[in-house]
Amino acid sequence: MKIAVCEGDGIGHEVIPPAKEVLKHFLPDADYFDVFVGYDKWKETGESSSDSDIALFKSSDAILFGAITTPPVPEYKSVILRIRQELDLYANLRPVKGSIFGQDFDIMIVRENTEGLYSGIEEIGEERSTTLRVITKHGSERIAKMACTLSIERGHKMPLVIGNKANVLKSDVLFRDSCIKTAGLMGVKTKPMFIDALTFDVLMHPLSYDVIVTTNLFGDILSDACGYLTGGLGMLPSANIGEKNAFFEPVHGSAPDIAGQGIANPSAAIRSAAMMLDYFGMKKEAGIVEDAVIKVISSGVKTPDLGGKNSTKEAGEKILEYIKKI
Amino acid sequence: MKIAVCEGDGIGHEVIPPAKEVLKHFLPDADYFDVFVGYDKWKETGESSSDSDIALFKSSDAILFGAITTPPVPEYKSVILRIRQELDLYANLRPVKGSIFGQDFDIMIVRENTEGLYSGIEEIGEERSTTLRVITKHGSERIAKMACTLSIERGHKMPLVIGNKANVLKSDVLFRDSCIKTAGLMGVKTKPMFIDALTFDVLMHPLSYDVIVTTNLFGDILSDACGYLTGGLGMLPSANIGEKNAFFEPVHGSAPDIAGQGIANPSAAIRSAAMMLDYFGMKKEAGIVEDAVIKVISSGVKTPDLGGKNSTKEAGEKILEYIKKI
Ligand SMILES: CC(C)[C@H](C(=O)O)[C@@H](O)C(=O)O
Ligand SMILES: CC(C)[C@H](C(=O)O)[C@@H](O)C(=O)O
Repeated sequence: MKIAVCEGDGIGHEVIPPAKEVLKHFLPDADYFDVFVGYDKWKETGESSSDSDIALFKSSDAILFGAITTPPVPEYKSVILRIRQELDLYANLRPVKGSIFGQDFDIMIVRENTEGLYSGIEEIGEERSTTLRVITKHGSERIAKMACTLSIERGHKMPLVIGNKANVLKSDVLFRDSCIKTAGLMGVKTKPMFIDALTFDVLMHPLSYDVIVTTNLFGDILSDACGYLTGGLGMLPSANIGEKNAFFEPVHGSAPDIAGQGIANPSAAIRSAAMMLDYFGMKKEAGIVEDAVIKVISSGVKTPDLGGKNSTKEAGEKILEYIKKI
Repeated sequence: MKIAVCEGDGIGHEVIPPAKEVLKHFLPDADYFDVFVGYDKWKETGESSSDSDIALFKSSDAILFGAITTPPVPEYKSVILRIRQELDLYANLRPVKGSIFGQDFDIMIVRENTEGLYSGIEEIGEERSTTLRVITKHGSERIAKMACTLSIERGHKMPLVIGNKANVLKSDVLFRDSCIKTAGLMGVKTKPMFIDALTFDVLMHPLSYDVIVTTNLFGDILSDACGYLTGGLGMLPSANIGEKNAFFEPVHGSAPDIAGQGIANPSAAIRSAAMMLDYFGMKKEAGIVEDAVIKVISSGVKTPDLGGKNSTKEAGEKILEYIKKI
């Protein structure tokens, strides 16, 4: 098993090492190798990722990724977008878990990750600029299949919600209808909702949601809105899955303001490692890691963002200790 | 002064009459005339709005509008979108007011209302459908001008936030830069933010926002997300402003589930009437109406959505009474 590890910039250097320790505990024999991309690389070499970095990522079975600082130049092209596109990582999975009025919610946002407004088909002009929003049947069906598989795995708790804006965008009629068709074939009930009303309702009633599938930019906004439900983005992991490769990263950024102080919360990175274990079919192990993160925090080991005084290192070590005891 | 009144469908028939009473109190000599569009019209005539309805709307100085039920046919074209486009109502103003931890927030979302993903430029196919997102310098500058005017009127409380996704969409580079340029000329400070991060942050820190300007569909989603901050959409008014016409409507829909029972909350419709007064330059009168809505509710006169037992009629009458006493 080949696992690429990329710390990236800023607090990436702090939160990835404990997440890697967790992986090593469960996968001691995997082949771990580092890939260096991001802002620091850009400062050194003038490019934030090279073709050979992408080749390295492609050669891996899974990628553990920290976060990247955006260089302050207008022509900068996002490394993350490059990786998503060149590795065709079409499914962006963003679980949002938390509790409200003493009840637990557990929402899985399944974001299409390669098309929609991220097509890159643009015309720039001084008077008028355009971006083409592209929805394909193929792209919609494969993301729907992923969402339905998750819905089935999770026990069909609620219908699959299809976030769309088909009342305005004809391109979303194709998305919605492809999702409904795929779900029908897989025996999954669906509930199409307009993205504006959905964003409002998921904030009001998070307990009423299970799996939500949506297009690229709607998923981007919806997942940040749901981040509010967990009190912040600091705890949220994500996975970007393709046919051949998979990429796991915390939702938070490189946080230059606290980088280097050793106080970043490693939970999101460690949970991203748990998503990798799940991806490798190690569901029990993924569950242990998830459990460890929650238990260690509720035992009082908290980094400053959670109101505590523990360091990244202390939090990471406690979580690893808890895991080793099971 | 010519004021078109359109109740529309469902609770539109209940919430518009008290809002019209409020207008009549301050504008007794205006020429009020009814326009009949919507689902009921569609059932009778096969079309939800006719060319002569649009001509009537165009002949008005302002429109008070209820809500419309969407007919259950795929080829239905939204009446509201038709009015926005044919009357070129380019600015959609969505104020969001409320309080959190005992402090009042007061956010004005200024949504561009004619272009972006609402261009209507679409190609439909079985394998691939596209929608063209169109941003123009003209469209961006005129919405920025509106937002800056509001920011100045409101006392420059905070920088004008520009909601955009210029890190992915080149079309938003034009939007962002046009807003920055216009604001510079008008002496307004700006703060560009990516729409995903903005949606999250406005939920976390509503007190830190004053005026937000953004593109069409981002404004649609963002304003519903902010609706959460007020505990629901039931209280929120909106204005759609053009060079010649202006259109005022509650954010809520026609609510078929409670229509006909006389229990709908008239606050959003009455606040929409207040926005019309403000539009006519009657700022003091608009303030009185705003005040009346808040005071009457906090005195305990509440429709069921607010946990009370009062009817639409009772709530409307109390608000009018309060206004008349001032
Ligand atoms: C950094 C940016 C290009 C990216 C996106 O828009 O997808 C980010 O917001 C995300 O959600 O991963
Ligand atoms: C009904 C729909 C076409 C409309 C929109 O998308 O603008 C609505 O959501 C709104 O916000 O007024």
